[in-house]
Formats: sequence, structure tokens, C-alpha cells
Amino acid sequence: MSDNELTHPGGKLRLFVGDPLRAGACVVPDEQQTHYLLHVMRAKPGDRVNLFNGADGEWVARVTGTSKRSCSLECERQLRQQSGEPDLWLCFAPIKKTPADYVVQKATELGAAVLQPVFTRRTIVTRVNLDRMRANAIEAAEQSERLTVPDCREPLSFDKLLVGWPRDRRLFFCDEGGEALPFPDAVRNPPPLVEGGEVIVSASPAREVSPEPAAIFTGPEGGFDEHEREALRALPFVTPVTLGPRILRADTAALAALTIWQSIKGDWR
Amino acid sequence: MSDNELTHPGGKLRLFVGDPLRAGACVVPDEQQTHYLLHVMRAKPGDRVNLFNGADGEWVARVTGTSKRSCSLECERQLRQQSGEPDLWLCFAPIKKTPADYVVQKATELGAAVLQPVFTRRTIVTRVNLDRMRANAIEAAEQSERLTVPDCREPLSFDKLLVGWPRDRRLFFCDEGGEALPFPDAVRNPPPLVEGGEVIVSASPAREVSPEPAAIFTGPEGGFDEHEREALRALPFVTPVTLGPRILRADTAALAALTIWQSIKGDWR
Repeated sequence: MSDNELTHPGGKLRLFVGDPLRAGACVVPDEQQTHYLLHVMRAKPGDRVNLFNGADGEWVARVTGTSKRSCSLECERQLRQQSGEPDLWLCFAPIKKTPADYVVQKATELGAAVLQPVFTRRTIVTRVNLDRMRANAIEAAEQSERLTVPDCREPLSFDKLLVGWPRDRRLFFCDEGGEALPFPDAVRNPPPLVEGGEVIVSASPAREVSPEPAAIFTGPEGGFDEHEREALRALPFVTPVTLGPRILRADTAALAALTIWQSIKGDWR
Repeated sequence: MSDNELTHPGGKLRLFVGDPLRAGACVVPDEQQTHYLLHVMRAKPGDRVNLFNGADGEWVARVTGTSKRSCSLECERQLRQQSGEPDLWLCFAPIKKTPADYVVQKATELGAAVLQPVFTRRTIVTRVNLDRMRANAIEAAEQSERLTVPDCREPLSFDKLLVGWPRDRRLFFCDEGGEALPFPDAVRNPPPLVEGGEVIVSASPAREVSPEPAAIFTGPEGGFDEHEREALRALPFVTPVTLGPRILRADTAALAALTIWQSIKGDWR
């Protein structure tokens, strides 16, 4: 029996699986993972690999059986317990020049819980490959030592996104024009959200333990159009924000905003 | 005479030029800019374009003469004065998978003053195309409404970088292992830098007006090796920092660190 820890250039090998993980559980990797284990890593019975499934923490598993086309793994011991994660969504208009792959990869590393593509009026991209988004999110979760994979959602139109919006989730709208709070200030001291004279989310103290649910919304190449900006500013759950004195590209804005939120309210604290 | 403001999908057209800018100054765009003005924008005499040179602020200029292969511009009035910029360097090991183009573009948008490629032991990339780096930095400065272009420097080896390091510039070393301050805390309350019992940079108050000169250092794909990490930690001007609970790719780390610094000490405040 071999007793290698399987590693690749980025560090130890971690696989995201769909099966429940507990001591003694047998896990059968999917086709692609099997190919990787058998033909890239040349895994042998006894080799160790880490597993996570988004619910049961991280486990060390051993390769138990291998054949030409399949292999199985057995969960041995838990390395890390599952822990709560910040409840931050990224709503983004897919952009043409920067592949969505890139945004998905970075947003996963930066701990977004939900990735929601949105088609706005100026969005040039007309379809999103959701399978590819998910594959990228899984790969980034595996490599970043994250214990979950962000929920990659079906694209929505601008209108549908807003009609179905959960009222208690603050939407930070990254606006390039008009009056808005600097994003770090808005995250640190968020203004109350008011609807029909009633406070739906109160101004929250700077050092609360569990932050309010939040989302970041970034536009496409040419930004949001005037109607969209007006519509957003009129909504009770929207807080318009700015991201510094320079104009950031759509993908830079998304990554910068995720970073700021994580460093102030999220799990970087 | 035409009186159009030349624009492109990203907004108004801004050109970075080498000539001094003052009222009435004649500016001859370079070959590539001339091609862009004449054959992409189809500029006519009278058309307006914005110019900046990193020293004289931003100016409106008019196209004065055009021929098949050349055109000239005349400075009309100043739109923005030149202003001081945060003194933040990015030292980065070029990485293979993500083109340096991307890091250069994002770091320019995020306001880095100097871009310094560094060859570390685990750096796979063996050469850097400095002309291309500069072209990317200029394009990103033009599009982000920045008034300067970052100084793109010749690559240095790890050892050369540190031997020639200016002692009063704090180097935030993004370390994945070992004891280190969370980066936002280190930026907000930087520990004093001490050499031979003498304080070279004192602990600076959180709300100072002009921040100390600083630099961020990020490693290659596989991170810094053990010798490099020890060497860095032994240097008086180095402050090791961490960037949250997940392992970030080298390029994500660079962008996240620039964002954090700008939001706490830089011009996002």
C-alpha cells in the first residue's frame, strides 16, 4: 500500500464531491476526477487526497481501489469542520472582453456565496455557460482551500432580478456617476433601508458579529444606463456606492468590492 | 469645422502624450495614436480629445490639421489639475497562467505608482515584455481617467530587489504561511520598522494625511520558497501580512492587497 499525500503545483490535492462525508464513507469520484486521479496523478491504493462537499467539512480520504477506468475513495478522518460563511452575493453583468471564467474564479477565491449573472440593457454578452461557470467555481474552491462552492445561478434580466429581490438583503450598487457613499464607508456604517416610511434594515453598528445579508451589483462594459440607474436608486433595498477616484473596469470593480466587503464585514476580519 | 467630442465605448477619448501641455501648445500624437484618431475615430479638424502627460493635468485639445498619415492637436483649456498620488509600489513575481497584461491593467486602475516585476526562485516566467507592460499601463490609465501612468520597471531578481531597497519604504510581504498580521490591520496600524535597535519608520497613526511610502510584494504560482520567506522576515523594512482565510492566487492577492491599501491609506478615503 502506498501512503503518499497527492499534491499538485498549487499545493495538496482537494476534490469537491457530491457524496456525504463521514468516517468510513465510500466516495466514487466523477469521471473527470477519476481521469485526473488515475492518469494525471497516477494514484495508487493507499494514496491520500482531501475531500469536501460544502456541508461536512474537509476530510482525508484514501484511494481504496483502482482499475483502468474507475477508482474509489474511503473517508478516514475529518481535518476541518464546516463553518458558517459570509452571506455575500455577487450580481454581475457578464462582460465580453474578460471571460466570465476569470470573474468566477476570483469571486470564488474572495468568498462570494452566490454568483448571479444579470443581463442589463448594455450587456453585449447574450448567453452564459452555466456548466462552465460551475466547473470554474469548483476548481477555484478546490485550490483556494474554500469549504464550499458558490451557488452559480441561471442568468436573470435586470427587471427579473429586482422584482424577485429579497427585501432584507442590501444591494450595493456600484455607480460611476451621481451622489454615492464611498463603498468602504457604506459597508462600515450602512444607512438604514427604509420602505414606505418603515425601516426594513436598520443602520447596523460597525462591529456586529453576524453581518446583514448583502449583495454587490456591477454593470457591463458601458455601465448601467440612465433608466437602470434611476430604477436602482428608487428601490428601498439599494445603497449606491463609489469605488475610488478612478473608473474601474467592470471586472476590477467586482473584485475590489468583494475584497472591501470581506475585509470589513466578512471573514477577513 | 467639426466640434465633436471624440468618444469610444468606454467613454470619452483620452490620450497619454509625452509633450508638455499648456494653452496653445501643439501636440503631435505618436504613430499608433495617429492611426487610431484618423482611421478608427475618423477625426476631423475641430474634434475634441482629452490629453494628459502625467505632469500637467488633463487638457481639452482640438484636432487642428489632418493628412492621410499625420495629425496635430492644439491644447485649449485645462480640465483637471495634476494632483499628488499615493506612493504605493507593486512588486510581483510574473506568473505563467495569468498574462502580465491583466495584472498591469488592474494595478493601473487600482492606482499603483510603480510596477516592479521580480524573479523569485519559483518564478517560471523567464522574461517580461516591458514595452507591452508599458502599452497596457498607458491604455488602462487612459480608460480609468487616471492622470499618470505607473512606472513600469525592468525586472529584478529577488536578491537585487532587496539589496537595493529604500529603507524607509515599508514592504508588505503577502505570506501564506506563518505568523502575520491581517493586511487591513497592518495598513491601519503599521508596526514600527526597527533596524539595529533604531526605529527607521515609526508606528504611524491611523488617520495621518500623507501615508508612508509603501510596497506590496506577491509571489509566483507556488509561492515564495522557505529561504525567501526567512530572508524577507529578517529584513527590517518588511511587514509580513495575510490576506484572509482562503488561499488567493498570485494575481488575486496583488489586486486584493492594492484595493485594501487604497481604501485605508490611499486615495479612496
